[in-house]
Amino acid sequence: MKIAVDAMGGDYAPEAIVEGSVLAAREFKIPIILTGISHRVYQELEKYEDWKHLGIEVEHADEVVEMHDSPSKVIRSKKKSSIKIGVDLVKKGEASAFVSAGNTGAVLAYSTIILRPLKGVDRPAIAVQLPTAKGTSILLDAGANVDCKTNQLFQFGIMGHAYAKYILGNDNPGVGLLSIGEEDGKGNETTKEAFKLLKKSHINFIGNIEGKEVYRGNADVIVCDGFTGNVALKISESLAEMIGGSLKNLFKTGMTTKLSYMLLKPHLAELKKKVDYSEKGGAPLLGINGVCIIAHGSSSPKAIKNAVYQAHLFVDKRINEHICEDIENNLDGKGSLWQHIKEIVAGPEDYPKDPETSEETSDPSKN
Amino acid sequence: MKIAVDAMGGDYAPEAIVEGSVLAAREFKIPIILTGISHRVYQELEKYEDWKHLGIEVEHADEVVEMHDSPSKVIRSKKKSSIKIGVDLVKKGEASAFVSAGNTGAVLAYSTIILRPLKGVDRPAIAVQLPTAKGTSILLDAGANVDCKTNQLFQFGIMGHAYAKYILGNDNPGVGLLSIGEEDGKGNETTKEAFKLLKKSHINFIGNIEGKEVYRGNADVIVCDGFTGNVALKISESLAEMIGGSLKNLFKTGMTTKLSYMLLKPHLAELKKKVDYSEKGGAPLLGINGVCIIAHGSSSPKAIKNAVYQAHLFVDKRINEHICEDIENNLDGKGSLWQHIKEIVAGPEDYPKDPETSEETSDPSKN
Repeated sequence: MKIAVDAMGGDYAPEAIVEGSVLAAREFKIPIILTGISHRVYQELEKYEDWKHLGIEVEHADEVVEMHDSPSKVIRSKKKSSIKIGVDLVKKGEASAFVSAGNTGAVLAYSTIILRPLKGVDRPAIAVQLPTAKGTSILLDAGANVDCKTNQLFQFGIMGHAYAKYILGNDNPGVGLLSIGEEDGKGNETTKEAFKLLKKSHINFIGNIEGKEVYRGNADVIVCDGFTGNVALKISESLAEMIGGSLKNLFKTGMTTKLSYMLLKPHLAELKKKVDYSEKGGAPLLGINGVCIIAHGSSSPKAIKNAVYQAHLFVDKRINEHICEDIENNLDGKGSLWQHIKEIVAGPEDYPKDPETSEETSDPSKN
Repeated sequence: MKIAVDAMGGDYAPEAIVEGSVLAAREFKIPIILTGISHRVYQELEKYEDWKHLGIEVEHADEVVEMHDSPSKVIRSKKKSSIKIGVDLVKKGEASAFVSAGNTGAVLAYSTIILRPLKGVDRPAIAVQLPTAKGTSILLDAGANVDCKTNQLFQFGIMGHAYAKYILGNDNPGVGLLSIGEEDGKGNETTKEAFKLLKKSHINFIGNIEGKEVYRGNADVIVCDGFTGNVALKISESLAEMIGGSLKNLFKTGMTTKLSYMLLKPHLAELKKKVDYSEKGGAPLLGINGVCIIAHGSSSPKAIKNAVYQAHLFVDKRINEHICEDIENNLDGKGSLWQHIKEIVAGPEDYPKDPETSEETSDPSKN
């Protein structure tokens, strides 16, 4: 199993990316293909005496996608970028997974276009691990799909469930739908319909959860559209930043507070680490034919090492097979997703009866 | 100017509500009408020797709306509730404003039905004050409208602008649209259209703002639909709760951390107060014919006192007149809102030309 890594993507590329890849190859014995401007990548690799013995290869890319490039422009004009080359390696089967800390929109666009969504999945979603009072929850979609249909929210539930079960090892993860009230009928038009679908699925759907429940950790998986998910994550970062800043100012106010800061310092560092979700290494793009891990733009070497390990886990645990099975189970098994969709669209009374099982549909006047 | 206060609404009603009303009447000399089960209200009032000299009246209500009651059920079945009586007092002109810490949905429903939205406003919005690194920002809608149209987001911008200008005294408040990227084209279908409307308005529209900007305080007013706003606020509460809990645990870990807690205690209380938006007393329902302040369900007497003062401010500053003027300016003035809406719907090229100003529309073949 080789993992392709975008050497040129991220705020500290290529230094931090190459270092992180070296660390991963060394520690986990995972062979890595670095994609990027080859002379730059080799220049970085030469910093590590043992790199040639770690199973690291370099695949040349002519171009670099900048963080601010628009994905649609990238697809039209940058056809030999390190991102495109990396995704192509997965498509050709030369790599089992791709890791990038680069332009998320471009990674998403290429993965969707080249690898294609899994059968039964409309579009891939970005799933992030959130630190909670009880441990870790998964939130998806974190921003891949700004306008979501009911069906997509349902698919996010199935995919998040597979992530929690097969990657995090939670046997029976509780899946909640992010909404504005806990009661069944609360939500916007899309969540109200998605609620009905999720309730009929075979996964452990625990109903609506409010924003105030998120960090309490009562839902192992939190389903939402990508607009809400992105706002929820970014506003969390923003609040944590403000509280951190206020604490910092507080510690500076006088001798007693300075003293207490000295006493607390090691504990605070630990707390910060716990709350910082970039420590997790990366967010998988769930629902594509292949494994693709999106690392934080400001990834440190350690974050890249963790992202490579996570990519390895996703391949090893065959997450996509499980997602396909679960979607399939809800299509034709007891859950019969499409049946439910038809019922919801038509309403239970208007729903036409099956002619093979119902006598009422045969019209006697025609005899 | 009399302010009606729902004596029965809130987790600590009627005790905390009556106490807060007495405090407000005493401190600000504001006459108050308490609506509620009269013997319970008098029982509470009797705790304060001077209450009869404070200009406090009691308006009897037969029923109490519980926090978990569904608003639609309340409207059908509880026609003599303290909320209904309070809103009626405003409608009849016997009170200038209404304050309630009770069932938000019921207050919203009654205000909309009985007082009606202002001219040019589709539906009222709940506006909350957020503490930020720079001071205070206003976020609306905080949950009144879960499915919003483009127009509504535009109206929220106008209303939030008036709130910041006339209540908070910010001469030129910057209004931002909450979205998933700062670039003009980022957002979901509704925000992308609302962006165009806000950009053409006369208010100081600063464009999209991401979640990560919210607590930095770079936007004085943050516009979003009620679903996103509610999730954003509640998830903030949730994260603050988790960080607070983690700090508490951290302080308990050993002698040194216990010591530093003792040193920090007064500063932490101050910080908590700064971050706690319930301290602000209440959130106005903007866009109705009347003033209605929704206080936090867990309001303390002090929060109620602040909410009464806020109600007084909204009446005194004639916020509704300003909103109507601003909406009007954008309807027929230079902003010409409806013109812009037509352009957006039809697209600039398809938009039919005005026959009175354009020669091209006269068809020579008809002569």
